Amino acid sequence: MTDTIRETPLLDRVAAPSDLKGMSIPELSRLADELRGEVIEAVARTGGHLGSSLGVVELTVALHAVFDTPRDKLIWDVGHQCYPHKVLTGRRDRMLTLRQEGGISGFTKRSESAYDPFGAAHSSTSISAALGFTVGRDMGKPTGDAIAVIGDGSISAGMAYEAMNNAGAEKRRMFVILNDNEMSIAPPVGAMSSYLSGLYGSPLGGLQQVAEGFEAALPGPLRDHARRARQLVTGAVGAQGTLFEELGFQYVGPINGHDMEQLMTVLRAARARATGPVLIHCCTVKGKGYAPAETSADKYHGVGSFEVATGAQAKKKPNAPSYTKVFGETLAQEAARDPDIVAVTAAMPGGTGLDIFGKAHPKRMFDVGIAEQHAVTFAAGMAASGLKPFCAIYSTFLQRGYDQVVHDVALQNLPVRFAIDRAGLVGADGATHAGAFDIGYLAALPNMTVMAAADEAELVHMVATAVAHDSGPIAFRYPRGEGEGVPMPERGEVLEIGKGRVLFEGSDVAILSFGAHLGECLKAAEKLEAQGVSVTLADARFAKPLDRGLIHRLARKHRALITVEQGARGGFGAMVLHDLAGEGLLDGSLAIRTMTLPDRFIDQAAPDAMYADAGLTATDIAATALQAVGHRSARVPGV
Amino acid sequence: MTDTIRETPLLDRVAAPSDLKGMSIPELSRLADELRGEVIEAVARTGGHLGSSLGVVELTVALHAVFDTPRDKLIWDVGHQCYPHKVLTGRRDRMLTLRQEGGISGFTKRSESAYDPFGAAHSSTSISAALGFTVGRDMGKPTGDAIAVIGDGSISAGMAYEAMNNAGAEKRRMFVILNDNEMSIAPPVGAMSSYLSGLYGSPLGGLQQVAEGFEAALPGPLRDHARRARQLVTGAVGAQGTLFEELGFQYVGPINGHDMEQLMTVLRAARARATGPVLIHCCTVKGKGYAPAETSADKYHGVGSFEVATGAQAKKKPNAPSYTKVFGETLAQEAARDPDIVAVTAAMPGGTGLDIFGKAHPKRMFDVGIAEQHAVTFAAGMAASGLKPFCAIYSTFLQRGYDQVVHDVALQNLPVRFAIDRAGLVGADGATHAGAFDIGYLAALPNMTVMAAADEAELVHMVATAVAHDSGPIAFRYPRGEGEGVPMPERGEVLEIGKGRVLFEGSDVAILSFGAHLGECLKAAEKLEAQGVSVTLADARFAKPLDRGLIHRLARKHRALITVEQGARGGFGAMVLHDLAGEGLLDGSLAIRTMTLPDRFIDQAAPDAMYADAGLTATDIAATALQAVGHRSARVPGV
Repeated sequence: MTDTIRETPLLDRVAAPSDLKGMSIPELSRLADELRGEVIEAVARTGGHLGSSLGVVELTVALHAVFDTPRDKLIWDVGHQCYPHKVLTGRRDRMLTLRQEGGISGFTKRSESAYDPFGAAHSSTSISAALGFTVGRDMGKPTGDAIAVIGDGSISAGMAYEAMNNAGAEKRRMFVILNDNEMSIAPPVGAMSSYLSGLYGSPLGGLQQVAEGFEAALPGPLRDHARRARQLVTGAVGAQGTLFEELGFQYVGPINGHDMEQLMTVLRAARARATGPVLIHCCTVKGKGYAPAETSADKYHGVGSFEVATGAQAKKKPNAPSYTKVFGETLAQEAARDPDIVAVTAAMPGGTGLDIFGKAHPKRMFDVGIAEQHAVTFAAGMAASGLKPFCAIYSTFLQRGYDQVVHDVALQNLPVRFAIDRAGLVGADGATHAGAFDIGYLAALPNMTVMAAADEAELVHMVATAVAHDSGPIAFRYPRGEGEGVPMPERGEVLEIGKGRVLFEGSDVAILSFGAHLGECLKAAEKLEAQGVSVTLADARFAKPLDRGLIHRLARKHRALITVEQGARGGFGAMVLHDLAGEGLLDGSLAIRTMTLPDRFIDQAAPDAMYADAGLTATDIAATALQAVGHRSARVPGV
Repeated sequence: MTDTIRETPLLDRVAAPSDLKGMSIPELSRLADELRGEVIEAVARTGGHLGSSLGVVELTVALHAVFDTPRDKLIWDVGHQCYPHKVLTGRRDRMLTLRQEGGISGFTKRSESAYDPFGAAHSSTSISAALGFTVGRDMGKPTGDAIAVIGDGSISAGMAYEAMNNAGAEKRRMFVILNDNEMSIAPPVGAMSSYLSGLYGSPLGGLQQVAEGFEAALPGPLRDHARRARQLVTGAVGAQGTLFEELGFQYVGPINGHDMEQLMTVLRAARARATGPVLIHCCTVKGKGYAPAETSADKYHGVGSFEVATGAQAKKKPNAPSYTKVFGETLAQEAARDPDIVAVTAAMPGGTGLDIFGKAHPKRMFDVGIAEQHAVTFAAGMAASGLKPFCAIYSTFLQRGYDQVVHDVALQNLPVRFAIDRAGLVGADGATHAGAFDIGYLAALPNMTVMAAADEAELVHMVATAVAHDSGPIAFRYPRGEGEGVPMPERGEVLEIGKGRVLFEGSDVAILSFGAHLGECLKAAEKLEAQGVSVTLADARFAKPLDRGLIHRLARKHRALITVEQGARGGFGAMVLHDLAGEGLLDGSLAIRTMTLPDRFIDQAAPDAMYADAGLTATDIAATALQAVGHRSARVPGV
């Protein structure tokens, strides 16, 4: 399949969503088919979240056809399903720049388009935002209806529940589309949803009551399917009302999210009649319309580039195992020796490497769903009972459980082990997924131990260290992606808490690295040595407790000290500065520089390019060191 | 009423909860009465959370009589209702030290007693912790059943939902007691609950099914009451199953939480038979048994000392208005001029002063319940619609919405105004309520502006500044309690963003204060001047953006620079250090010291005593400055 063969007569007529208004339902259906092909071709080249986007093609078309975007505020939860939306809203010609440096984001983004009224990337924020817009409308702001589209996974998070609870109480007119792709649409359910959407379009209204009567009147098997559809929303058996109804929403559905006629009928009726909050339960198939994705929804959640005809994904051959895999395998091995080790993930078994652990120790693996707050305190409870919980959460998502880290873990000094993947800049997922703040927000906490792995062998040691550290909480961070390709130890050794290591010792400049930027620091040291500057290179290993002996020694014996970390200000460098200031070691002639992420969010690109953007290359480090040393030797007056 | 009149023959027999095992139900009832009197007398002297504690006296007795604490893990959510629990678990003789310096905590606390298996103070953590203990038990740890006792307010938080959702799926035997004190127990409901508890104790089991049949068979009015009782749990009308059933819990109740016979019957039956997660819905009256508290539940939620006979609370006459009140009044005044101002609280209208705002502008005030995650993103949505939201959340509770501050507010640069009360150390509520980390966790965020008020007049200006600052997010922090008594401006003036102020200028030492410790810095300056040291005193006002001009000038023109803040390391002082290091201004002979909260949690005491404990008195500041200056002038070699 190539661009020359694929024809898109309807899509070519769409410059903006308003161009959908005049189309008939059959035309909208055909438009959806064209749009689907367009998305598949684009993602085949760029990689991205294919399955989620394919599941909402018809829904995207129908929403833009029925609602008056961008005046109406269409808010995609997470935002990874927004590719068809981007094509329809003026970004068609930029789809091949998706997730690339300088290109469009893989998520919705306010700065990118007026059709993206509220950006996302983390889950479960859409209902809160939609309620915010709704209040704005009710207070006279020039905004129409707010529509949140949220997946069945995202709605399980506490935040979505809080928002539903509040929206139900506020009773304002707003729309939540539950995009339920757990359930494939079996014919009976489809039949019922057709029936339901017909009812809703009828002049009788009062869908809920009608639906209940309808359900009761169905023959046995159909009734069971209808019930199952409702139960699915709550995961419970025997429930008679949905969670949404209990929270004050009018519930409509389930409807077939790939049936344009149903979608249009229900959305039009809902738009025409809603007076309060309405939840439309819409069943879709992840990967819909592209066989390789449909049959393997998981693999196509996020993909690299692939061949459209076969679905074969182009895989770069890795040079080294990923940090994620090293973590999962190491923890599984440690757990084989220690029956007290348990692991917690918040809906990310694959992303955290805990799928590997779970295969080896299924009864000791807990996937709590998108529920970071609970995950942390659940782990704290297990720690209080005497177990050794590893709570594996990405740096950016651990922000969701921060209070629990403070209040339940650190304050009680409970030995929860935090495995913090995706620390630092992460590449194509961009600023929303950057792990920029964890060093600071953890190192500020009493009782907490904070480590960062310089390479994948260090990660093995840090897992072993965390297993052994039973006297309080401990966290270790490591980046996304491949390791450095270093030789791997047979088994991790337990590191001494609060001790760094010196890689080589010089006399002019000390570079003190915390974490995975050590390789870049090594290159910087080589550049400096080439210019006749004698360098000490040290790996701090710990941001807390600091290796004060090492740091004081470095400060006393060098003209300049440069700290380097893959994180924001207020983290490792700040802790070093505080300590040296308190010791009076900044009173003298030491030139100190702290190299951190800059004070701005950094858009997606290859990680190396992002670090270049951030001013954290080997060249930057060497230049900073030279300036610090040169500056001193020049003894510029007045400073 | 005095100690000599009140007799406590049964309570005197209770050295530990095991002493309850042999008591009859009438004896347990009398014990509860004695316990209630004991709690009232203690809190009359110490102050504290009276109403919540009085509501659970019978429940506390029954739980300890039925379960095998401390092997069984009894976890009080929030923990402010634990006073009767403390009396029964070996802390009776320390009740008069409640919330005092060196005394017992006003909450549950692991380090205080084996009967406090999981401490608290923030809400909604108990179910997560209980599930953690339950897994520990199932994995062979020496722990019995876990019982979480959670209020109807706390269970509305997303975290509790996440935990219920997970516990329901895990299907492990555990107990959640819903302590529902919103509902007074009207006779019909009481009758039904008696009936229900009788049923549950019967050999038939399957309470849920029986209960449904029972409800249907009731005559109309009784049926309505029974329904109402169930609906109360979800707040929705017309719901047929409770939220808890949908989440996989067996639901028992509602029962009368002051009827010892019902409590004992239901708890014994539940303990004997439960195989999975059970929720017992227990209705109580806040302040039960003490008329002044019962008739005024709100006023007696947290009280100062009072006279037992009349309930008259001893009130210290304040010298100055509280920061909280100043905030509420100022915002209400600003809102009278600006129709776009709206306010959000997470279940703390009184605590944040927004009750004052809400009285003036009821339609612009949003209390979203205990739901900080939603509160922040809801505010972000309102900001995106063009409104000017003030999100008023205590420093310690804003930790609950941290990811939302990062991902929804800062990343999108939306003008949400964060009013951060209870910044710094807070007194009797102790370490769990300290606002220690906000400066660091906010100042690390790109786009964020961070202010702190030096006094209540500054707070007025900062509210005005936040109103005017519509280009991005802005936060202002201020402490708990009375202001400084400074003259108040007629109206707040809009401060220049990123500009501090110099109070007076000297030549030896610069003290740079951020926030409400300015008064202490002033005292320190006086001490220093008395010793012949010439001092510059400046109020930074902003931790972000820093007043770099001011800071560089202070660094260049003084021998020593001391930063002072009511927060942890990694905050204001760290930002100053980073900046000066980057400028090369630490390369020379400046002696710099950063005074912050120490790296440990600080137990309750009067705020002044807590700051003394923290090493942040005027004397400490002066001593630090002297050391810094003396150190330089002595030119100690080798440093």
